Amino acid sequence: MTASDVAVFRQILDAKDVIEDEADLAGMNVDWTGRFKGESRLALMPRTTEQVADLLRHCQKRKLAVVPQGGNTGLVGGGVPIRDEIIVSLGRMKKVLDHDPVTGTVALEAGVILERADQFVREHGRMMPIDLGAKGSCMIGGCLATNAGGIRVLRYGSLRSNVLGLQAVCADGTVLDNMRGLQKDNTGYDWKQLIVGSEGTLALITAAVIKTWPAPKDIQVALLSLDSYEQIGKLYSLAQSECAEVLSAFEFWDESAKGLLQKHLKLKVPQTSQFAVLIEVSGSEKEPNSEKLLRLLEIAMEKEIILDGSIAQDETQAKVFWSFRESIPEACAKEGLVLKFDLSLGRSQALYSIVERMRDNLKNDATVSSITGYGHFGDGNLHLNISMDQLPDREKVLRIEKQVFGYIRENGGSISAEHGIGQAKMPFLHYSRSDTEIALMYQLKGLFDPSGILNIGKVLSPKTTKYFNVY
Amino acid sequence: MTASDVAVFRQILDAKDVIEDEADLAGMNVDWTGRFKGESRLALMPRTTEQVADLLRHCQKRKLAVVPQGGNTGLVGGGVPIRDEIIVSLGRMKKVLDHDPVTGTVALEAGVILERADQFVREHGRMMPIDLGAKGSCMIGGCLATNAGGIRVLRYGSLRSNVLGLQAVCADGTVLDNMRGLQKDNTGYDWKQLIVGSEGTLALITAAVIKTWPAPKDIQVALLSLDSYEQIGKLYSLAQSECAEVLSAFEFWDESAKGLLQKHLKLKVPQTSQFAVLIEVSGSEKEPNSEKLLRLLEIAMEKEIILDGSIAQDETQAKVFWSFRESIPEACAKEGLVLKFDLSLGRSQALYSIVERMRDNLKNDATVSSITGYGHFGDGNLHLNISMDQLPDREKVLRIEKQVFGYIRENGGSISAEHGIGQAKMPFLHYSRSDTEIALMYQLKGLFDPSGILNIGKVLSPKTTKYFNVY
Repeated sequence: MTASDVAVFRQILDAKDVIEDEADLAGMNVDWTGRFKGESRLALMPRTTEQVADLLRHCQKRKLAVVPQGGNTGLVGGGVPIRDEIIVSLGRMKKVLDHDPVTGTVALEAGVILERADQFVREHGRMMPIDLGAKGSCMIGGCLATNAGGIRVLRYGSLRSNVLGLQAVCADGTVLDNMRGLQKDNTGYDWKQLIVGSEGTLALITAAVIKTWPAPKDIQVALLSLDSYEQIGKLYSLAQSECAEVLSAFEFWDESAKGLLQKHLKLKVPQTSQFAVLIEVSGSEKEPNSEKLLRLLEIAMEKEIILDGSIAQDETQAKVFWSFRESIPEACAKEGLVLKFDLSLGRSQALYSIVERMRDNLKNDATVSSITGYGHFGDGNLHLNISMDQLPDREKVLRIEKQVFGYIRENGGSISAEHGIGQAKMPFLHYSRSDTEIALMYQLKGLFDPSGILNIGKVLSPKTTKYFNVY
Repeated sequence: MTASDVAVFRQILDAKDVIEDEADLAGMNVDWTGRFKGESRLALMPRTTEQVADLLRHCQKRKLAVVPQGGNTGLVGGGVPIRDEIIVSLGRMKKVLDHDPVTGTVALEAGVILERADQFVREHGRMMPIDLGAKGSCMIGGCLATNAGGIRVLRYGSLRSNVLGLQAVCADGTVLDNMRGLQKDNTGYDWKQLIVGSEGTLALITAAVIKTWPAPKDIQVALLSLDSYEQIGKLYSLAQSECAEVLSAFEFWDESAKGLLQKHLKLKVPQTSQFAVLIEVSGSEKEPNSEKLLRLLEIAMEKEIILDGSIAQDETQAKVFWSFRESIPEACAKEGLVLKFDLSLGRSQALYSIVERMRDNLKNDATVSSITGYGHFGDGNLHLNISMDQLPDREKVLRIEKQVFGYIRENGGSISAEHGIGQAKMPFLHYSRSDTEIALMYQLKGLFDPSGILNIGKVLSPKTTKYFNVY
């Protein structure tokens, strides 16, 4: 990158949208976990899709690498530079473009913060189909680029399945635009699904139309204790049958999580056994919700699936129950440095075994202070957190990763259910995807971004066209 | 194709799975509407994915064109040969491969008939996410290849959004396989979404994992009369707010439909005004369903959104109400030869205007006997049926198509909400998709099927790499 490149960028953007100041760049060069640091000397903050197109056209011509950045809340280093790539931040494209009161769809620019989008649609009695811890910072564009998960997937489906329109800019500046926001449209290939979840490696998302859902008027939450992971599966089947359409969350955590919540955050979790399950039902009126939840608990108690449990008596108690689940990552972090895994299996039953296996594998490792399992049971999605006293060396991390991901590979699961591949999991992509699938990904990458300027070093290794199989 | 090609196919398949008999081929050469006829002299009926791969490998090597066929129930000529392509029928791959009792996912071979899949999962208290008129004949592979719609999209989302795994064979025999059936998996590009809805032009679907839903234990149906299309929009907004999670269908039809149902099928529709709406709510218990539906009707009556209406008193009456909606295509067909359109717009309000516009445009055409509008209001999806006394000449059809599709183009809608492009709508693809989108489709087609052997003459014109813009 030369001074004349910067001059071109200054022609495309307002001066204040071209960031060269080191202090301003600092926060954009590092992800929020602090694990991934880049050395970018330039961030561009376009305000229109045309500006994005003009910027990328110049970058492609000059083969300047670009990293798209949203709210910078990712967990796998997908949104920060690996070296000195130019950061293209979408944070200044934050308009709500359109809202349809009948169908409830909402059209948003990529930089709209999730929480703001949710607030906007709630004024119309609707809610966004996605909710996650980072909602106060994460942006719609980043959520889409990573097909972000969270607690609403169980009821409302993946974010991918709630995308009705997309606008994205390819590496050569071509604008792909399908913002018609149609609920149904079978006219040729659905290219937008390829961009969603591609982590900014195929195109840069500038806007989207999202399907929203009626906001529930009543929410009920229960907290239950169970003495084995198998019992959670039984409870889940029962909940699907008894609560069906009102079931909106089915989360679980183990005794280790309970211990850390107590130890570090002084939270008293009324959990009497090895596992806790948080069930949420929600819908358009209170009575059937309460009745369905109560009946579920009665049947589960009678069948000895649960040991005990309670239904939150008011909104405050419901928030307390949720705070247990939501505070687990924080409690793990207070225990020490955390190796985080985000795993899924098709068949839920075997998933917790990896927690037990890792406890066994690491039982003689004095640096390991706790091993915790929790997550979205209904999605077959387990978060495994290994808290360690000290930063383990790269070799030890690798050994642990190989054990965890090896188990997932053996059982046909995903090494990244929600978080994506980014930099962190790139070397392990082949643990979840076949050589054939990865070869196809390289072909698609080559088609969309032949010069390889978009988010280099994320998802696919840039070093070879054959997968760079380091492990 | 030579005798030695057939000999190769006989080595790959059992003799009885290689069909050369003209009588046996007749039904496979023509679509069920009778509009699209091919002259294939060979149908292959593989029983395994490996056989499909071996067949395609040979076809690609010899540049023999192939048309994949499922239940042959499509409406746009997408599943029949245009000339003498080899038919590859999936009808003999009909095994249920797996079923997970906890998550409720089901793995199916492409040839499983939708109704059979639904029956299978209902034994486990679940239902398929898709239901449509052709369910007794259509196959899972064909449903996926066309991203088939139907009456459950409103509640359960598109079929696309319920696909958790896919196995498909590329033109060169490469087997793309991701049958892990994960609810959440963010490990690289979701190629299966590209195959879904590509109508057999990118790869041949051999199996899939589908998400199923708890089968409702109670279903309530109401039939309402309204005097304008705008009122339907108001009723829909109200239904989303009042019935929310139990709303499972919101269908509508016009007075013309009522007249044809009465005239040709002797059905007495209790519809007192210009429009009828059928609302279905369903869920895990009767009482809240009935109460929510009743309250919706009370409010709608009070607000003068509906003129009158009734709730089906039992299952028999509910079936009668549904029969009105389901019999409309048949009633239109009895009125004469039907030009069928399957349209959607992002904003529901303007959609019915095309029916009125076409009535106006064709008011002096004596061959037009009725113009009927009906469809899935909640999905913004209108079926426009123009019944004519006699087969119109190609020129007149074209004139009508240009008027209808022109309106859709002006309003940013879809010329094919559910049915796909196939042969029938190929010349109009650019009415719904931009040149940029279509150029990308050609690139993707070139990547997946460089020799162009897969379902030639469907979706994209084979004649040029630039879209063959005949109109």
